[in-house]
Amino acid sequence: MSDLVPLFQPKSVALIGASSNSKKYGYWTAKSLIENGFEGDIHLVSRTGGEIFGHPTYPDILSVPGDVDMAIIAIAPNHILPVMEQCVEKGVKCAIVVSTGFGETGPEGKELERKMLEIARKGNMRVQGPNCMGTYSAVKSMNASIIDLAPGPMSLVLQSGNFGIDINFNAKSRNLGYSCWATIGNQLDMRFHDFVEYIEADDDTKVLLLYMEGLRVESEEDGRKFIKAAQKTAARVPIAAIKIGRSAAGARAAASHTGSLAGSEKVFDAALRQAGVIRVDTPRQLLDAAEAFSKCKPAKGKRIAILTDGGGHGVMATDFAERFNLGAPVLSEATQDKLKEILMPHCPIKNPVDLAGTPEADMWVFDRCLDVLLKDPDVDGVVIVGLYGGYADLSEEFRILEMDVAKSMVERIAASDKPVVMHSIYQPQQPECLKYISEHGVPVFGEVDAAVRTMGVLASYADIKKSLREEADGELADMPHDRRERVGAIIQAVRASGRTNLVETEARNVLRCYGLNIDEDYLATSADEAAAFYKRIGGKAVMKIVSPDILHKTDAGGVALNIDSEAKAREAYEQLVKNGRRYKSEADIFGVMVTRMLPGGVECIIGSSHDNTFGPTVMFGLGGIFVEILKDVSFRVAPVNMPECRKMIREIKGLGMLQGARGSKPCDLEALAETACIISHLVDEMKDVVEVDLNPVFAREKGLSIADARIILRS
Amino acid sequence: MSDLVPLFQPKSVALIGASSNSKKYGYWTAKSLIENGFEGDIHLVSRTGGEIFGHPTYPDILSVPGDVDMAIIAIAPNHILPVMEQCVEKGVKCAIVVSTGFGETGPEGKELERKMLEIARKGNMRVQGPNCMGTYSAVKSMNASIIDLAPGPMSLVLQSGNFGIDINFNAKSRNLGYSCWATIGNQLDMRFHDFVEYIEADDDTKVLLLYMEGLRVESEEDGRKFIKAAQKTAARVPIAAIKIGRSAAGARAAASHTGSLAGSEKVFDAALRQAGVIRVDTPRQLLDAAEAFSKCKPAKGKRIAILTDGGGHGVMATDFAERFNLGAPVLSEATQDKLKEILMPHCPIKNPVDLAGTPEADMWVFDRCLDVLLKDPDVDGVVIVGLYGGYADLSEEFRILEMDVAKSMVERIAASDKPVVMHSIYQPQQPECLKYISEHGVPVFGEVDAAVRTMGVLASYADIKKSLREEADGELADMPHDRRERVGAIIQAVRASGRTNLVETEARNVLRCYGLNIDEDYLATSADEAAAFYKRIGGKAVMKIVSPDILHKTDAGGVALNIDSEAKAREAYEQLVKNGRRYKSEADIFGVMVTRMLPGGVECIIGSSHDNTFGPTVMFGLGGIFVEILKDVSFRVAPVNMPECRKMIREIKGLGMLQGARGSKPCDLEALAETACIISHLVDEMKDVVEVDLNPVFAREKGLSIADARIILRS
Repeated sequence: MSDLVPLFQPKSVALIGASSNSKKYGYWTAKSLIENGFEGDIHLVSRTGGEIFGHPTYPDILSVPGDVDMAIIAIAPNHILPVMEQCVEKGVKCAIVVSTGFGETGPEGKELERKMLEIARKGNMRVQGPNCMGTYSAVKSMNASIIDLAPGPMSLVLQSGNFGIDINFNAKSRNLGYSCWATIGNQLDMRFHDFVEYIEADDDTKVLLLYMEGLRVESEEDGRKFIKAAQKTAARVPIAAIKIGRSAAGARAAASHTGSLAGSEKVFDAALRQAGVIRVDTPRQLLDAAEAFSKCKPAKGKRIAILTDGGGHGVMATDFAERFNLGAPVLSEATQDKLKEILMPHCPIKNPVDLAGTPEADMWVFDRCLDVLLKDPDVDGVVIVGLYGGYADLSEEFRILEMDVAKSMVERIAASDKPVVMHSIYQPQQPECLKYISEHGVPVFGEVDAAVRTMGVLASYADIKKSLREEADGELADMPHDRRERVGAIIQAVRASGRTNLVETEARNVLRCYGLNIDEDYLATSADEAAAFYKRIGGKAVMKIVSPDILHKTDAGGVALNIDSEAKAREAYEQLVKNGRRYKSEADIFGVMVTRMLPGGVECIIGSSHDNTFGPTVMFGLGGIFVEILKDVSFRVAPVNMPECRKMIREIKGLGMLQGARGSKPCDLEALAETACIISHLVDEMKDVVEVDLNPVFAREKGLSIADARIILRS
Repeated sequence: MSDLVPLFQPKSVALIGASSNSKKYGYWTAKSLIENGFEGDIHLVSRTGGEIFGHPTYPDILSVPGDVDMAIIAIAPNHILPVMEQCVEKGVKCAIVVSTGFGETGPEGKELERKMLEIARKGNMRVQGPNCMGTYSAVKSMNASIIDLAPGPMSLVLQSGNFGIDINFNAKSRNLGYSCWATIGNQLDMRFHDFVEYIEADDDTKVLLLYMEGLRVESEEDGRKFIKAAQKTAARVPIAAIKIGRSAAGARAAASHTGSLAGSEKVFDAALRQAGVIRVDTPRQLLDAAEAFSKCKPAKGKRIAILTDGGGHGVMATDFAERFNLGAPVLSEATQDKLKEILMPHCPIKNPVDLAGTPEADMWVFDRCLDVLLKDPDVDGVVIVGLYGGYADLSEEFRILEMDVAKSMVERIAASDKPVVMHSIYQPQQPECLKYISEHGVPVFGEVDAAVRTMGVLASYADIKKSLREEADGELADMPHDRRERVGAIIQAVRASGRTNLVETEARNVLRCYGLNIDEDYLATSADEAAAFYKRIGGKAVMKIVSPDILHKTDAGGVALNIDSEAKAREAYEQLVKNGRRYKSEADIFGVMVTRMLPGGVECIIGSSHDNTFGPTVMFGLGGIFVEILKDVSFRVAPVNMPECRKMIREIKGLGMLQGARGSKPCDLEALAETACIISHLVDEMKDVVEVDLNPVFAREKGLSIADARIILRS
């Protein structure tokens, strides 16, 4: 069971720092708790004593009779430590520290937080905040915040009080409320993953919303705990999130605002996708998503039909469908035939279906066409755009008719298993038929883009569930069972020699231990050996200098290609060693590696680096100019199973390069995915490895070859 | 003077088809005209006779006393032709045909339109519509539409009545009105460019808005007239436009809606940019832009300062700044020093400037910080985001204070020459201080993205004016004066031989006539000649088959590289001709072209094709995989001068490839721009040329070489 059950479902709550001074937080919180009708005991603790809102007060929490599950602490930082100790003594299971003046103010505040955490951990008490705006829980009618919150299908976890106000404003105007609501403040103890985990078991939550500025991490495990918790919860309930700091300047501003060391935005974005979280950009988009998920049936796919009474709005919706990752394909002949029976010949029916002025003669065309579209097996959802809701302005007769048609449409939609989203230019005026529609399972938007974007969000959840299911099945690339021990030994040997970077022969051994297909290599320590090794290989060979002091082998003149005779091997050996010495006179040269020269292919990169928030990652990209000029790479947080790796490979913009550009054969995408999967497990299992760089990797019609490998250990 | 002066400033208006039947268009239009208080004579023409709204009616326009400048025609299509003839006879200068049932219904309607146009053109009468919703003109208080329109700083030209209603709804809620408003319907005679031209001279218009579905073109000149008119008007007043049909599916839907043959969306988008038009996507964005342009000072650049009372909103604004093409750079030390004097040490001041809770203690920090930011010479505009407008909720004291601070801020902004745009989460509630601010030169938005996007739109206009000025200066690449005659002769010769595709030697001659630096080439008609030509060239040579019947020379085995001796030239000649014959036995082989083999460089493409809407275009892209996989190309409508060509080259995503990727030297971008400029003039001047393809062009550190050239004539 989640540690947060006593936070959201306490039997008794104590407010420490309750006040009768209407300018104080302790006043407003007491007011919220009492007026919201908390279904449990409220105990007010106040040093000044007296009654507050007709409730008695206690001088400290130890004087409160009976058990206290949860305490809200609204006192100044300099009094916090003894109060927390008393809470522990009282057996409080969760505390919310709403006070400010902690880690956000500087080193002193951080030290105070450290001590608070020590007390809490020792006493098995979980802490929300500090520097937060409290918590709301509909199941207990508990409003332990100072914001006017109402019950409903959303849960919202926020890292900003201002956004709490912002989102709640707009939620109210849409009649949307919360099952759980929490502001996490400085994330001293309770982190996003704790809340996300709790929500998984909260049946009243139909959609989980997050507003994030950054994850507070003590270790990289914290970042990955978030991903795991979100994956589990997202399989049951859709999660939509805002994460600010998207741009370089924004990330700088976020770091100065939250005082946290930011990880890479690209990795955070990838982590959210990997976690099954739908990323949105604004509070409004967050609520659009929330409204849709709490009202609509799930979409099974991305093929939408657009029903409109005006050509322009229909075309605009079609444009946005493409932008928001939906398809608006030409409707089937069967459906078009049915529409032809309903509509006049001048009405376009391919998709969009354009009523083109006919509703003024017969309003029921809306209803009849909607029926046809909902019954089309090739349609996953319907978006209605245009003027519906404004016909009432024409006459009383039209007003009644528009409402009747609305009722019929709503019935059809309720009976269907498909989502319907609506746009009307009259939505801002809230005419009665649109209110009715909105209250009966159809979100209504005043802007075409919002309607279509929201259908796109609905549709994306089908993909997310599928991905999460596949990834959870755990399909992996093959890896030998003894890999960890064998790589451990290699690493130990490297460390023993006082190094943190592996030379290429060592890196190749590591990759072999993980089951990657690496051609044989030979380390020659003399020209004679080089010649002998060449003889063993035959054909064309590559020779490379091997030295822990020479990282950029090409720059050092340390690479020789097209070696095709023993004489040339001998000659190359001498030359490479000479070049190496010239490049860095004191370099420790282990020798020269001799390998078969591999056939080329499409140049790729597979690598791994460490992220401040999420730890080890895996990266894939097209090599050379693609990665350098276009930054065309995809990321995942390690480890990843095969399904995500396959998606990762297909995510790059230049995918066409791997699918048979210029008449060449398509490359072996599965081999690329397997290599990425293996690297992701390597960096996950061998915590010592902080960087892997396979560059270039040549992708071919069948298989691939790793032409250079670099591995770096934690220093 | 514009032909449309009598449309927007008529002294007298006749409504033909005026009606007392409240279900008829002729009733509503009469009502609008009369109730809006048209400052001129209104004559109602009705076959049924009698008074309408207390006005007498006439049986036909010829019976109306005195001159009639403008006629509104609201009668059925089958009566239209004689009525138009009467209008011409009466000397009507402009007619608005609001009736439907013309070209939009099919071939019969199109034929009727043709006859209408004939009458109008013969009679020197300009026609708006048919199938439109009329016109509004504030200067004469003329509402010749059925929509409730008010005067104001915008002008709006629309291709959809529904969007007219949509936009007007939202305009009303913002207290925005129109100087000129017109729906263009089927664009039989009056086209977008006519309206855009008229607005250039309308001083009351502060911003021109367009809603476009497609341009109706009879010849490609119509498309280019729009560009020219927009360039001229945009130099005086900002133009923002919606153009639907952006996606492939949307373009298909638009074609079925408007019945027009669509040009390429990429070209339309380029044409709008070239025309100085700011493209937006939704009615709301259109009005955001209109509100900003009509309220704000122009921005001189893209560097904004963000002022916020909440860190999260500040970071979000910073993120959007990057997305909307603005910069939010770190503020100067001098400005930071001034801010330090105002703000507490915990407030971030680098940009965003985050008041971080201090306004509750001292509301004037808003005003003082704004003052500092407006005075910073490195700040081009200020975006305020957060909670301003909600402090009033705290107490009456705060309400008064918030209003006082608002008044002071508004004064500062009025005294400054910089734009300020504001976001407040309280905007939907319209608190009094936000209303005040909004009425005094500062657009206020309820969403951060809208505020920042709008600042981006404001800032983009500075670039547009600069571009239009530069382009209007007419700087061209050098082109010989006799180019047209010489190319005309080449084309004539090709035509005389019954061909429409030039062989490479001819294409190279055309390019030489236009001053492009094309290496000498020799057409060998025998192996001996080939050897002799090789001898003249020396070094390494390229040989290519020359035949109008072999377009794909490489596929035909028609290209030989690295020819370095007379013997090889001889041998290659025989081989190429043999290959050509084998490829196509009946091919007319002119011979084999011998040229010097040019050094390589970065592979580019410069070309031209014909667009249905805008005619000849010019295209630039990186060659090979870049164009094939990434479609990384930029377009312009021809002709273009050097400033636009330079922008066009820099627009591609892979620009880095030309700026010295992987340690190579940067390429000669000016040479690429010159070549694009010359090609754009070639296709503009030689109307016979419908396709040019220079592929590959090798860009080098100095200059470039055109390695293959194809030119195709109109067939």
